Amino acid sequence: MADDLVVMKFGGTSVATAEDIRRAARRIVAARESGRRVVAVLSARGKTTDELVDMAYEISARPAAREMDMLLSTGERISCALCAMAIHDLGHDALSLTGSQAGIVTDSSHTKARILDVRADRIRQALDEDRIVLVAGFQGVSGDSRDVTTLGRGGSDTTAVALAAALGASVCEIYTDVAGVFSADPRLVPDARKLPIVSFEEMLEMSASGAGVLQLRSVEYARNHGVRIHCRSSFDDGPGTLVVSEHETMERPSVTAVTHAEEARVTLTGLRDEPGVAARVFGALADANVNVDMIIQNEPVSEDHLADLSFTVAREDMEPAVEALEGLGIAERVLADERVGKVSVVGAGMRSHPGVAAKVFRVLGDAGINIEMISTSPIKISCVIAPERVAEAVQALHAAFELGADAVRTEDPAGEHRPTVA
Amino acid sequence: MADDLVVMKFGGTSVATAEDIRRAARRIVAARESGRRVVAVLSARGKTTDELVDMAYEISARPAAREMDMLLSTGERISCALCAMAIHDLGHDALSLTGSQAGIVTDSSHTKARILDVRADRIRQALDEDRIVLVAGFQGVSGDSRDVTTLGRGGSDTTAVALAAALGASVCEIYTDVAGVFSADPRLVPDARKLPIVSFEEMLEMSASGAGVLQLRSVEYARNHGVRIHCRSSFDDGPGTLVVSEHETMERPSVTAVTHAEEARVTLTGLRDEPGVAARVFGALADANVNVDMIIQNEPVSEDHLADLSFTVAREDMEPAVEALEGLGIAERVLADERVGKVSVVGAGMRSHPGVAAKVFRVLGDAGINIEMISTSPIKISCVIAPERVAEAVQALHAAFELGADAVRTEDPAGEHRPTVA
Repeated sequence: MADDLVVMKFGGTSVATAEDIRRAARRIVAARESGRRVVAVLSARGKTTDELVDMAYEISARPAAREMDMLLSTGERISCALCAMAIHDLGHDALSLTGSQAGIVTDSSHTKARILDVRADRIRQALDEDRIVLVAGFQGVSGDSRDVTTLGRGGSDTTAVALAAALGASVCEIYTDVAGVFSADPRLVPDARKLPIVSFEEMLEMSASGAGVLQLRSVEYARNHGVRIHCRSSFDDGPGTLVVSEHETMERPSVTAVTHAEEARVTLTGLRDEPGVAARVFGALADANVNVDMIIQNEPVSEDHLADLSFTVAREDMEPAVEALEGLGIAERVLADERVGKVSVVGAGMRSHPGVAAKVFRVLGDAGINIEMISTSPIKISCVIAPERVAEAVQALHAAFELGADAVRTEDPAGEHRPTVA
Repeated sequence: MADDLVVMKFGGTSVATAEDIRRAARRIVAARESGRRVVAVLSARGKTTDELVDMAYEISARPAAREMDMLLSTGERISCALCAMAIHDLGHDALSLTGSQAGIVTDSSHTKARILDVRADRIRQALDEDRIVLVAGFQGVSGDSRDVTTLGRGGSDTTAVALAAALGASVCEIYTDVAGVFSADPRLVPDARKLPIVSFEEMLEMSASGAGVLQLRSVEYARNHGVRIHCRSSFDDGPGTLVVSEHETMERPSVTAVTHAEEARVTLTGLRDEPGVAARVFGALADANVNVDMIIQNEPVSEDHLADLSFTVAREDMEPAVEALEGLGIAERVLADERVGKVSVVGAGMRSHPGVAAKVFRVLGDAGINIEMISTSPIKISCVIAPERVAEAVQALHAAFELGADAVRTEDPAGEHRPTVA
């Protein structure tokens, strides 16, 4: 019976200063005093991780991944120890645990480890002793080598969701410096709406296409384990955005949100067009731990069966991707474009509303914005465009699909999640 | 067979900057390239521990000891990870380990834990794989609770000596920002000599009486386990000071060094003079983890058998000492003097040279320095004096016992450890 258990996760901006840590502690204690048992997952404070990364690069141009994990994992431990002290001062018992102590068992893929198992015995025991448990996010321990591992940037969200799943928590609350998930980036679109509820599938597409509020992997983990996420602000008490199974959401309009991102693009020219080439290319990228986003292969037009292949990757993955492919030696040239723009339209209702893609292309065309690559899923359409046209594209699409704060929404007939304008 | 194994310990000033870490890495690699196997113990960088302590007190006036350990133990891990990266860049394989991973098992006395066992299997395995091993100093893991513990300030020396003992290392090299152990603090006595060799017993007395270069506990551990210490500078290659068993040293002059310190003094007045009172006083102090240095009890002179009792403690222990004693309620008053001076004369030769104490008192008397408390051991005489007279007392004693650089020493007839003037 874990209905009374909540996992709360506080991001780096929510624990940056001593006052931020006290605020997080008060929120944790308030949850405890409302009768719930609390496990809180903390990120490293403010710019701590960046500072540790800088220290490493001050020492070495190519720091070993294992040592990077030993280094970076200290940031979250500092946050947890300090927050435990603040909770003690509020008269409650709290225990901080490293990822290893919390039983977060991962593979040994340093700096990008995946969670294999959650052995939460120690957390359960502390909860049974009526203690608040604080867990250092972003990290675990390799099941094989017993080395410290980290889960990659934003991995604390995944820690929180994994613990919520393992402990059967009723909800995983993700506290950040934004009030929830919005219909577009409010910095670009002033009338962007906070969405009261989105489905896992929509959130996955939005995280993958640039909505920074939740890490893609954590949403995937939540969907796979049925963990409800409540994404909310650590600075006010208003409701945020619930991320839930699609059957919990009501009928939706065709489009929920417009997202945007910057990526890098790699193009292979003069690729031999024969079976197995693509497998070799993307196998090499997988070996280099590079996640590929959009892919376009042009039909070979020339007699000698040479093709072009383009794909986009996260900007920090461009260099390892190029290196991995140059080592392969199967293309005439490996070209890299370190900055392209991407704009995406996401909505679960798109499945039953034909014509969304056509409308996207028309809106961009009317604005004179050239589409360089297109990729679609049943609930998303993404277009690669020039990076300097991204803001304009987001604004045009947000207006065309009437996503602004004045728009009528249908998914919340009970009025439980009244939209709040940021 | 571990004659080829060396344990090297680098203090905070030896790993403060990126360049310092590279220098330590070069020294470690040089030892490895000379054919020895190397385990290096690192302290936290520069002011890191102080900064972490400040963070804790920014959050809470009374941070819990367990959480303090979780917090402080991160500093040494950062040093080790960074140094491993620097060693990799020099073309050698290095592995950083936390205290827990290195098998440093302690009791659960947080912030002042004692080492109970060293389970160095993982270090041995890494050495067998021809790797350099870096161990985070100052920390361990509680054998009972599996919590992170720390060994108290300067605990990295103890980590190094404990590892040297467990691994059967030929020597434990302690690298600091001073060139060795001196006949007096060179900041007070310009002609102080670097001592080529001192016995464990002398070093124990010197560490206990203010020589900051080696932590008392580490010297005790070294003596008990027969670990030779070489205390030397991380900034030059000259020989430092060897700390060895007394039978390895030659006949000594009566006095080896003059040390000084500042302590706090606590006085209990109106103490009932009956059996068991002292036991209750010092039992309460032990429970509060306070180490008492000098003790003086005055005979009761009044009819009602009330006595006075004074003792000195480290300055940071004064407040907990006073609190512990006020809780006891067995004295009329608990008085505290937060700053007293102490000057000590140390020498293994003192045992066979009578009259050293008389000479100390005469020298101080001639200088018009009032002696407030006296404590002696077979190889040490300490006097509590006014703190503002300490420098003068050290200079007078150093001169009177002819300890300066011009003095003729007898302990090194082979000339192996030629004294170097700092």
